[in-house]
Amino acid sequence: MKFRVSCELEYTLYDPVTFLFVLHCVETSDQLLLSESLVIDPYIPSEEFIVPGGMNRVTRFTTYYSGHLRVSYQAEVSTNTLIAPSNLLSNDSPQTFGADVIPFLLPSRYCQSDRLREQAYEMFGHLMTPHAIASAVCSWIYENIAYEMGSSMETTSAVDTFLHRHGVCRDFAHLAITFCRAMNVPARYVTCYAHKLDPQDFHACFEVFIDGLWYIFDATRLVPMNGLVRIATGRDATDAAVCTLFGTPELTLSSVFCECIDPDFVPITREDLIQRNEAIALL
Amino acid sequence: MKFRVSCELEYTLYDPVTFLFVLHCVETSDQLLLSESLVIDPYIPSEEFIVPGGMNRVTRFTTYYSGHLRVSYQAEVSTNTLIAPSNLLSNDSPQTFGADVIPFLLPSRYCQSDRLREQAYEMFGHLMTPHAIASAVCSWIYENIAYEMGSSMETTSAVDTFLHRHGVCRDFAHLAITFCRAMNVPARYVTCYAHKLDPQDFHACFEVFIDGLWYIFDATRLVPMNGLVRIATGRDATDAAVCTLFGTPELTLSSVFCECIDPDFVPITREDLIQRNEAIALL
Amino acid sequence: MKFRVSCELEYTLYDPVTFLFVLHCVETSDQLLLSESLVIDPYIPSEEFIVPGGMNRVTRFTTYYSGHLRVSYQAEVSTNTLIAPSNLLSNDSPQTFGADVIPFLLPSRYCQSDRLREQAYEMFGHLMTPHAIASAVCSWIYENIAYEMGSSMETTSAVDTFLHRHGVCRDFAHLAITFCRAMNVPARYVTCYAHKLDPQDFHACFEVFIDGLWYIFDATRLVPMNGLVRIATGRDATDAAVCTLFGTPELTLSSVFCECIDPDFVPITREDLIQRNEAIALL
Amino acid sequence: MKFRVSCELEYTLYDPVTFLFVLHCVETSDQLLLSESLVIDPYIPSEEFIVPGGMNRVTRFTTYYSGHLRVSYQAEVSTNTLIAPSNLLSNDSPQTFGADVIPFLLPSRYCQSDRLREQAYEMFGHLMTPHAIASAVCSWIYENIAYEMGSSMETTSAVDTFLHRHGVCRDFAHLAITFCRAMNVPARYVTCYAHKLDPQDFHACFEVFIDGLWYIFDATRLVPMNGLVRIATGRDATDAAVCTLFGTPELTLSSVFCECIDPDFVPITREDLIQRNEAIALL
Repeated sequence: MKFRVSCELEYTLYDPVTFLFVLHCVETSDQLLLSESLVIDPYIPSEEFIVPGGMNRVTRFTTYYSGHLRVSYQAEVSTNTLIAPSNLLSNDSPQTFGADVIPFLLPSRYCQSDRLREQAYEMFGHLMTPHAIASAVCSWIYENIAYEMGSSMETTSAVDTFLHRHGVCRDFAHLAITFCRAMNVPARYVTCYAHKLDPQDFHACFEVFIDGLWYIFDATRLVPMNGLVRIATGRDATDAAVCTLFGTPELTLSSVFCECIDPDFVPITREDLIQRNEAIALL
Repeated sequence: MKFRVSCELEYTLYDPVTFLFVLHCVETSDQLLLSESLVIDPYIPSEEFIVPGGMNRVTRFTTYYSGHLRVSYQAEVSTNTLIAPSNLLSNDSPQTFGADVIPFLLPSRYCQSDRLREQAYEMFGHLMTPHAIASAVCSWIYENIAYEMGSSMETTSAVDTFLHRHGVCRDFAHLAITFCRAMNVPARYVTCYAHKLDPQDFHACFEVFIDGLWYIFDATRLVPMNGLVRIATGRDATDAAVCTLFGTPELTLSSVFCECIDPDFVPITREDLIQRNEAIALL
Repeated sequence: MKFRVSCELEYTLYDPVTFLFVLHCVETSDQLLLSESLVIDPYIPSEEFIVPGGMNRVTRFTTYYSGHLRVSYQAEVSTNTLIAPSNLLSNDSPQTFGADVIPFLLPSRYCQSDRLREQAYEMFGHLMTPHAIASAVCSWIYENIAYEMGSSMETTSAVDTFLHRHGVCRDFAHLAITFCRAMNVPARYVTCYAHKLDPQDFHACFEVFIDGLWYIFDATRLVPMNGLVRIATGRDATDAAVCTLFGTPELTLSSVFCECIDPDFVPITREDLIQRNEAIALL
Repeated sequence: MKFRVSCELEYTLYDPVTFLFVLHCVETSDQLLLSESLVIDPYIPSEEFIVPGGMNRVTRFTTYYSGHLRVSYQAEVSTNTLIAPSNLLSNDSPQTFGADVIPFLLPSRYCQSDRLREQAYEMFGHLMTPHAIASAVCSWIYENIAYEMGSSMETTSAVDTFLHRHGVCRDFAHLAITFCRAMNVPARYVTCYAHKLDPQDFHACFEVFIDGLWYIFDATRLVPMNGLVRIATGRDATDAAVCTLFGTPELTLSSVFCECIDPDFVPITREDLIQRNEAIALL
C-alpha cells in the first residue's frame, strides 16, 4: 500500500532548546520510502543518527534564538504491514528468542509487567499461543478501557491505566505490551502515522514477536491495521517519542496527515480478522 | 588492581525453567579478564550471547528435570576503574552526546526521572557541571536514605525510595540515576562484584557520562570505589539483573566472594575524594 | 461579614440515582445563617442529616425517573472567620489534643502523611510552632505548586501533587494538610463558597488546630481569607465533597456564586498577613 | 463464648514519647467485659477517652524519661460474634443507610475504593446482595492473595496488595473492605484478639453492614469466626491501630495471647459456613 504522510510542528522559542525529533518513516523489509523531505524553518544545521540497538531515525539540532520554529516532514511510503494470521501457532519461548528480542520481555518505564504479572496470568493464563494471548489482550482492553481524549497524562503508566480504565492510544499500547510481557510474550511499542485517523494525529500501537517475526496489533480499533506507517519502535513511549525536548519551548501548532493513496486499498480491521477466524473455526 | 571473584548459586527445580544468567565479568578498556570458569552442575548445554546495544554476557539454558542445580562462576580480573577527578569540568549537553548515550537520559522502569524532575531541579538546579550534580546527588542520598536490608522489594522504584527514605544498594543506585537523568546528566546502572562488601553479595552502583567517559559513582559508600568489578550495565536493574528467570525454581544458596589480590591495593573511598577536593579547594 | 451565596446544579438522569448533597452552609460559632433555601426541582422528598463526629449537613434523596433535575441553594450568611494572628505561640502536642482532634493527625485517602513524613521533616523540621509550620507549608506550596485547571484528577492524592507540582485548590489543600499532619499538627479540609473567586466555583482550603481553635489557611492565595463561607469540613475531600453520587447521572450545569454584601468589607490577604508579621518582626 | 486475652508490650525509650494505645476490649451489645486490667510499668499517669463517632478506648500518656516501659493488658471477655447467615437477603442501599454508616462507604487511606471501582464491578458486579458480595470478595482474596509474613510494609495499601498479590491480615482486610465499598457495600476494619492464632499476634478482619447490622468477615481463614475479641473499629488500620506513637521508642517485645476458655467452644470456620450454604442450596 502507498501512503502520503506529513506533519507540521510549530514552536515558539524563548531559551536555547535541543530537539530530538523522530518524524522520519523508517525503512524496513516491510516499509519502503519512495520520497521524503524534512524542512526546518528557519534553517538550522542538524544531524541525523540511529540509536544503537534500534532503528529510529533521530534528527537533532539546537536553537539559540527566540522566536518561531517550524518543522515540516512529508513522505511517500510503500508498506506491507505484517498482520498475524489467525492460525499462527508457535512454540516460541525465552529459550529460543534472539538476543535482540530479550529486552522486549522485560518491564520498562510505562510497562511495569512485573507489577501486573499476577493479574495477567489470571486473565490470560489459560491461553496457549502468543497469538491467542495478544488477541485476547487486545479484546480485553478494547472492551474494558474507555478511549477518552485528555484522560491521561505524560506520566500515566500501564498500572494507572489498568486501574483507571481510561486512556488514549499511548495508554492502550502500554497496557497491551505490559500484559504480553507479563505472559513472557515479547512486545514493543510502535509510533506511526495512521490512515485517516480521526482526528488526524500521531498514533501508537504495538508489535508482538511470534515465530521469528514482529506482527502489528492495535487495541484501539481506530484505524485499519494495514493503514499504519511506522515512525519509531521501542520499549515504550520513552524510546519512541516523536519529540524529546531539552528546554522549554511552546508548541503552538501540531498538524499530522496520513492517507493511503493506493486506489486498491481495502482496509483490514480487527473485526475482519475476528470474523475470518470465526469462519475458519466453523469449517 | 587484580581481583579474585566467585559466586555460587544453588536452586531446587520443580518445573522447566529458562535461566538467563549474567555472572561473567565483562571485558572493557578498563577491565581485563585473566581467567574465568563457569560450571553448571549437572551439565546442561548453554549458549552465551550479548544483548545488542549493550555489553552484558548472558548465559542461557533451560532445565527440564526436577532436582538440584548449581551454578558456579569464578574469575581473576584486572581493573582500572574510572573515578572522576574532582576538577572535572565539562560542557556536555544533549546536543553533543553520542547516539549510544541518549537512552541513559530517558526514564526507565525503576528510574522515573520524569516524575522526580521538579524535585531534582529544586535540589540540584544550582549546580553547574555533571560532576558537581553527581557528587551532590551521592551526598544527598547518603545523608538522607537509610541503608537497611529488607527495606525494599523487587518492585520498589526510585519514587518509592525517595518518599520512603530507606533502601539497599539497588535502590540507592536507582534514585541516584533518576536524579542525574532528571538534570539531563546521562546515568546508567552497574551490577558488580565488590571488594570485601560486608556481608558479601552482589553490589549495585552507577556511572555518569562526563566529557566522553563513563565514571563510577556509589552513593552507599560501602566499598572502596576502586574495589568494583563490573558484571552488567544497563538502564536500571531490569537490564542488569544477575539472573532473569522464566519459571519458578527455589533459590537455596547464594554465595558471593570478591577480594583484591593485589598487595599494593590502596582503597579509595568517597571520603578520600571529598577530602582531596577540599584540599584542592583550599589551595 | 455578610455574604450572599448560591449554587445551581443541573443533571440529566438516566437510571435511579441516590444523591448526597452537602451544599448548605453550616452554623458554627463563627458562622451564622441569616436565611437559606434549597429547591429540588422537580420536587423529590429528601432528608437532611449530620454525619456523627462531624458537622456537615447532608441532604439525601433518590431519583427514580429519567430526565432533568435542578438543585438550587441560596443563603445569606454572616461570618467571622478565624484567621491566625502571627504571634500565635502554642505548646500544643499529641498529649493535650482533645479526642475529637486526634483523627486529624492521621493519614487519610488523599493526605498520605505517613508517606511524606520524611520529606516534611526535611523541609519544616526546624520550625517551632504549629503556626510557623502551617505558614511555611502555605508559602512552599504557593511557590512550588503551579495552580492549573485540569492538571489533576479525582484520584489525585497529596503524593501525586508533591511529585507532579501541579494542581487545583483541592490538591493545594490536600498537600498542605499532609505536610501539617506529618509534622504532628492537626489539619482538616474545608469546602467553602469563596468571595469573588475567579472563575466562580466551589473552593477548598484547610484549617489548622492551634491552642484549642481551628484557624483557616489557604495556600492558593486566590481569595481573601475573610471571604470564605464554610460548607463542609472533613479529613479530606472524601468527607467534604459537595456531592457524593450513587448512580451515573450527567452533570449539565454547575453555577456557583459568592459575594460579600457588607459595604465595610476589607479583604484580608495572605500578603497582608505576611507584611503585618514582618512589620511586627521589625519592631 | 468466654475468652481470656492478654498482651504485653515492652519499649526502650530514648526521648519523650506520647503513646496512644488501643489495647482494651470494647463493650458492645455482642461483647461483654468480665474483668480487665491495664498496667503501665513504671507507673505513668494516663487518661482514657473514646474518639467521637467511634468506640475505640484510647489510653494516652507521655513518657519523659529514658529507659524501659512495659504495658500489660489482660481481660476476660464474653462474646457473641455476629456471623452472617447464608440466607441473608437485603435491599440495603445508600438511600437507607444511617448517617453513621455513610463514612464506611467512602475511600480511606489504605482502602482506595475509588481506584478499584472498575475492577470490583468486573469481578463482583453480577452479585445481587451485600452478603453475596462480601462472601465472594473473601473467597477471591483467599484464593488469589498469598498470606506471607513480611510481604508488606506500613504504607502498603489495597491497591498495592491487589497488584502484588501478597500480604498479611491487615492487607487482606484492607483489600476486602476496598472491594466492598467499591460495590457500595459499607465495610469497616476491625482489630482483634484471635483465638489460637498461630503465631499469636493481634489480628485484623472486617465487618460488613447488612440489614442494619455489622457482620464479621475474615478473608484469611486463619481463625474460627467465633474466636474473635474486638479491640478497635475504624475506616482502616489508621483508625484502629493498637498503638499510635508520637516519638521514636524501640519496641523490644510484643507478646499477645488469646484463648477461648469456654469448654463448649465449637469453632465455626468459613469452610463450615460454605458447606452449610451448599447444603442449603442442595435442598
